[in-house]
Amino acid sequence: MLRPVNDRFLRACRAEPVDRTPVWFMRQAGRYLPEYRALRGDREVLETCRDPGTVVELTLQPLQRMDVDAAIVFSDIMVPLAAVGVDVRIEPGAGPVVAEPFRSAADLARLRPLEPEADVPYVLEAIRLLRKELDVPLIGFAGAPFTLACYLIDGGPSRNHERTKTLMRADPEMWERLMRALTNMVLDHLAAQVHAGAQAVQVFDSWVGALDPDDYAHFVLPWMREIFAGLELGVPVIHFGVGTGDLLDLMRDAGGDVMGVDWRTPLHLAWERVGFAVGIQGNLDPTACLGPWDVVEHKALAVLRRAAGRPGHVFNLGHGVLPDTDPDTLRRLVDLVHERTAAP
Amino acid sequence: MLRPVNDRFLRACRAEPVDRTPVWFMRQAGRYLPEYRALRGDREVLETCRDPGTVVELTLQPLQRMDVDAAIVFSDIMVPLAAVGVDVRIEPGAGPVVAEPFRSAADLARLRPLEPEADVPYVLEAIRLLRKELDVPLIGFAGAPFTLACYLIDGGPSRNHERTKTLMRADPEMWERLMRALTNMVLDHLAAQVHAGAQAVQVFDSWVGALDPDDYAHFVLPWMREIFAGLELGVPVIHFGVGTGDLLDLMRDAGGDVMGVDWRTPLHLAWERVGFAVGIQGNLDPTACLGPWDVVEHKALAVLRRAAGRPGHVFNLGHGVLPDTDPDTLRRLVDLVHERTAAP
Repeated sequence: MLRPVNDRFLRACRAEPVDRTPVWFMRQAGRYLPEYRALRGDREVLETCRDPGTVVELTLQPLQRMDVDAAIVFSDIMVPLAAVGVDVRIEPGAGPVVAEPFRSAADLARLRPLEPEADVPYVLEAIRLLRKELDVPLIGFAGAPFTLACYLIDGGPSRNHERTKTLMRADPEMWERLMRALTNMVLDHLAAQVHAGAQAVQVFDSWVGALDPDDYAHFVLPWMREIFAGLELGVPVIHFGVGTGDLLDLMRDAGGDVMGVDWRTPLHLAWERVGFAVGIQGNLDPTACLGPWDVVEHKALAVLRRAAGRPGHVFNLGHGVLPDTDPDTLRRLVDLVHERTAAP
Repeated sequence: MLRPVNDRFLRACRAEPVDRTPVWFMRQAGRYLPEYRALRGDREVLETCRDPGTVVELTLQPLQRMDVDAAIVFSDIMVPLAAVGVDVRIEPGAGPVVAEPFRSAADLARLRPLEPEADVPYVLEAIRLLRKELDVPLIGFAGAPFTLACYLIDGGPSRNHERTKTLMRADPEMWERLMRALTNMVLDHLAAQVHAGAQAVQVFDSWVGALDPDDYAHFVLPWMREIFAGLELGVPVIHFGVGTGDLLDLMRDAGGDVMGVDWRTPLHLAWERVGFAVGIQGNLDPTACLGPWDVVEHKALAVLRRAAGRPGHVFNLGHGVLPDTDPDTLRRLVDLVHERTAAP
């Protein structure tokens, strides 16, 4: 790396003082960018993920437009499942659809262990290539076991995740075997990304907010704890979910250096709940970025006020960038956060 | 009424002592009942709602199977909107779809004031007929302005409600006019239902949990406050939403005698947040009722433990009964709650 590395994001993840609050956006490499749509064309997302050259270019696109303080490798949480042979495709505008959803213990045979160098070489190759290009830290990621299970069992996006939640409670033995397989897959996938050069990782437990705290504690927390305990990789780990206001303390107990929090919980309350020993990432409503600039500014400043300049805040949206977002809004938002949090 | 009225539900709404914790279920008159599917046949929901004879029969069906302590008139939150001329239909398995979603102030002309006796006589007639049949209290209901606006503006079920939230923030003048019209409609509709004989009402702000607390306080709370202040009808009012853990204190400030709470917030925490001056309704995960009986029992008893026998608890699911629910599970659940909370 010839250029100096902007390490604001990594410092914030370690709750160290920063010259400005770091900013990045989930799905910053995504459909809201015309250059993303042009480059991906009609290719399916998972197919696109298997081409390291395209992955590198897509990952870099948002950095050419705005001064975000981290890059996240372009990929999808379903990539490792597809790599071990699960028949899944990402339906445009909907999300992952699994051709034959898991219904019984016999389906578990379809989840062989992930061998990252053999199964997802394109992810690791893209990470190695990106590290040569980037002057900001590179984030790797994986979906968490519960969220992956939602797609495997419900078969696709689901309002209530009813098949997953029912199987989990009705067949704890199958659930345990499924969580065991997915936990190992997540651990292997994340470790390989870090060994390839990822400087931080995020675990996306996007749908875990559908659970009540009892179910979370019983069916999910032990596996998440194993993941965070197993990730002694020397890089910061972000633990993310949506609609998790009343799970945050349990999620913090499971682990993670930085807790992601969506917009439903005011940032200062979320931080009080998880304690100031961990960092916090968030928490602007992504729909705010669809509005006029004065709305974006007003709501972003409310987030900053609640963060109160405390070390350990990573500014982000509460979920991914929405496809109808104007890229220029995000560019201005990055500048706003940097300006308003500049050390004197 | 010849038969004695079971007033357990009304007493709990007023936080008075009860001989057993009352139970009813949102969407207890619904698709999970074979006799419901048989009676409704292929008729669209809104069409079904316009036939008082069918409404009476559908409302009574669950009471013939289980000892619920309240009935809720079979209807839909979109009924008053359809009655003033909005072109809406309920798509099977999806929800309300508005043919021409509201996009500009010109669309507001499509919302004329509701004249209940002329516009929704079938709702009022069904309530009058039901009061002659029932020995449990009858609940009337309406959708809250924000939730109705989500359907009018996003045009149908929406994961992010992005058009609604964007319009709300970007065009506060149109938002105010829309909320004014919907608030008046809700007030008129609920008052008419009470005058016809409804002994309690529930306001469904089902999608309000999509908002951050700032937006709720600014764009929704004033209208909800006006509704609850205007409902001096002498009957208990239940204020319901989903995913509202961090809105509960604001929703309590808006009003309502009983606060509905879904499964994401443990009942005792929710009650602490809203204060013990109001009652609380909930909060079993509806997907729990898809599981084997031991799961249902285990999770229902956890709700009862958290309610701790305090006056003011109305047992319910955290959202509507799911179509795949076994009716017999609900019957056993009602009996379980009654048995375990029986005064000695």
